[in-house]
Amino acid sequence: MAFVDDIKWMRHALALAARGLGNVAPNPAVGCLLVKGGVIIGRGWTQPGGRPHAETVALDQAGENTAGATAFVTLEPCSHFGKTPPCVDALIKARLSRVVVAVEDIDSRVNGAGIRKLRAAGVEVTTGVLEAEARAVNAGFFNTVIKDRPLFSLKIASSLDGKIATATGESKWITGIQARRYGHMLRYQHDAILVGVNTVLADNPDLRCRITGLEKGSPIRIVLDSSLQTPIDSALFKTASAMHPVMIISTEDKCSPSKVTAVAKIDGVELVTVANTYDLKMVATILAAKGITRCLIEGGAQVYASFFREGLVDVLYHFTAGKAIGAEGINAIGNLSLADLAHAPHLKQVRTQIIGDDLLATYIQTE
Amino acid sequence: MAFVDDIKWMRHALALAARGLGNVAPNPAVGCLLVKGGVIIGRGWTQPGGRPHAETVALDQAGENTAGATAFVTLEPCSHFGKTPPCVDALIKARLSRVVVAVEDIDSRVNGAGIRKLRAAGVEVTTGVLEAEARAVNAGFFNTVIKDRPLFSLKIASSLDGKIATATGESKWITGIQARRYGHMLRYQHDAILVGVNTVLADNPDLRCRITGLEKGSPIRIVLDSSLQTPIDSALFKTASAMHPVMIISTEDKCSPSKVTAVAKIDGVELVTVANTYDLKMVATILAAKGITRCLIEGGAQVYASFFREGLVDVLYHFTAGKAIGAEGINAIGNLSLADLAHAPHLKQVRTQIIGDDLLATYIQTE
Repeated sequence: MAFVDDIKWMRHALALAARGLGNVAPNPAVGCLLVKGGVIIGRGWTQPGGRPHAETVALDQAGENTAGATAFVTLEPCSHFGKTPPCVDALIKARLSRVVVAVEDIDSRVNGAGIRKLRAAGVEVTTGVLEAEARAVNAGFFNTVIKDRPLFSLKIASSLDGKIATATGESKWITGIQARRYGHMLRYQHDAILVGVNTVLADNPDLRCRITGLEKGSPIRIVLDSSLQTPIDSALFKTASAMHPVMIISTEDKCSPSKVTAVAKIDGVELVTVANTYDLKMVATILAAKGITRCLIEGGAQVYASFFREGLVDVLYHFTAGKAIGAEGINAIGNLSLADLAHAPHLKQVRTQIIGDDLLATYIQTE
Repeated sequence: MAFVDDIKWMRHALALAARGLGNVAPNPAVGCLLVKGGVIIGRGWTQPGGRPHAETVALDQAGENTAGATAFVTLEPCSHFGKTPPCVDALIKARLSRVVVAVEDIDSRVNGAGIRKLRAAGVEVTTGVLEAEARAVNAGFFNTVIKDRPLFSLKIASSLDGKIATATGESKWITGIQARRYGHMLRYQHDAILVGVNTVLADNPDLRCRITGLEKGSPIRIVLDSSLQTPIDSALFKTASAMHPVMIISTEDKCSPSKVTAVAKIDGVELVTVANTYDLKMVATILAAKGITRCLIEGGAQVYASFFREGLVDVLYHFTAGKAIGAEGINAIGNLSLADLAHAPHLKQVRTQIIGDDLLATYIQTE
């Protein structure tokens, strides 16, 4: 039963880890569960901003009672001095008898060193428990380290025939209130929300997370806006602040200097210029460098199409209403210019849920 | 526990009833289970063509052992002489102590008379057990009697962005082999398959049920073809026979007389002329008069749109592949000419299934 118990406790630790998603970048979202004699004595997860670490929180909660306990951590504990002392030292000091690790850290400063140090101190270490699940929870962190880009999740809400608005642009609302609330939860779990400027011009969204109690989780709001068309009086700029930042990605030679000056004066707005806003791989590298690990793409159709064309769709959250809009409606995904069907972007369906009256199908990229 | 047992046995009887779907029109598909002392002593369902009835099959199976048994029948037993003697008389003669009925028959020749006759003979009768489920199984039969039209089921297989082909018309295959096999099963469970002539011209389908062992279940194949464009050498005409009939619905004054003559010579082909093939309500009435209770619509986009516009979509089977085709692909549903979003046809989602790599979402009309 030992292995079954390991899985049970690690699943609990992974649920704790997920609580940090959207609030800990560029750090991974880690969960830590301390168990002694079959009883949970400490639960921790990476706190907003990335500190304190999950292990520290769990050890603090357990207090003096940790000798002989087992720690379940979703990522290899750190062994280097960063902003805080290494978690490995704290675990050793707490006289744990065993540490179970879901996945090894790939950060070059850790990369197995934490596990070696624990073993050297006489702590039994088990690795690879729910490793795939742990990689999935921290796909954003791993993507940033390995691929030098964030995890990109697309959120599409369409009619059953794949339309995101009627011919006249009416899109409020295709899906129901429950699906839209779920959409806000997705915003909470991402570090950044990205839209194209056409969506800003059409809908004037503020893209904040509007779940009571989770407002502080509002992510960085990013607009792909090559010629800086986002209006000065847009909801995005009006709600920009240090707590709710806005990033505009534009091309310097396409922007009017007076508009640049005006935008630069707005608190909480960062202007980033790139050679070509349509070069999404370059944009992705910049986002990773800014510490963004999880980015939610919320449209419009051209932006969705660009991410599909570049093979940059890691996760697709597709909400479908039981409504038909018809051919004259606005397509969810713009032109892909496929040579043939064999070249169609292909995702793997991993989950379906009924959310209110709507269907949520979740897809992931398989390489 | 009696009521719980009633539900358990009736669920079994409903599963038997469903076996007849697609093979018993214009009769209802009925299931009958005979239970004595907690043991099943007979199982029957309406046989192909509608005779013998489910009750007869179950009683034959049970033999001499029926005194004191309970019959679970999904539809009120018939009390009138038709092609066969009334089932009610057979149930009374078999000395059953109890008959449980899911739903009363609405055929004016039955309509409660079967239940009254059983009670008059001293048989205990319980009604309304799993009534909604029984109505759903026989929705085609009830539709034909009440609304004077068949049940219309749409089968759509599309990319996740609602396209049924690439810009160049490539559609083989968007969904996988398992989904396509499921599509053949749907053909088996319907009395007729209907497509528009554009689908015939584009794909030259033969629309038969290609599941080994179920070939006889191939339904009537119907083409909405106002000016009789279906080619003489089409797969439909080539495979037409008394066993695998084809029906062409056209408008007399739009058809070339020589083509009419040529088509009329093909065995197994019936030419039906109407004033206007786009008047689907008229077409539906004709199909009902021909004894069709369940009709599966397999495209194309204009035909799907017409059924949505007329409010004639009773069930939608929507297969979705994890592929994106992009805006330039061919829309699953043609123009609906919506005034606004509030007027979009709205269906209720009732089931999701993973079929191979594809998603099948089933929707029904709610009135």
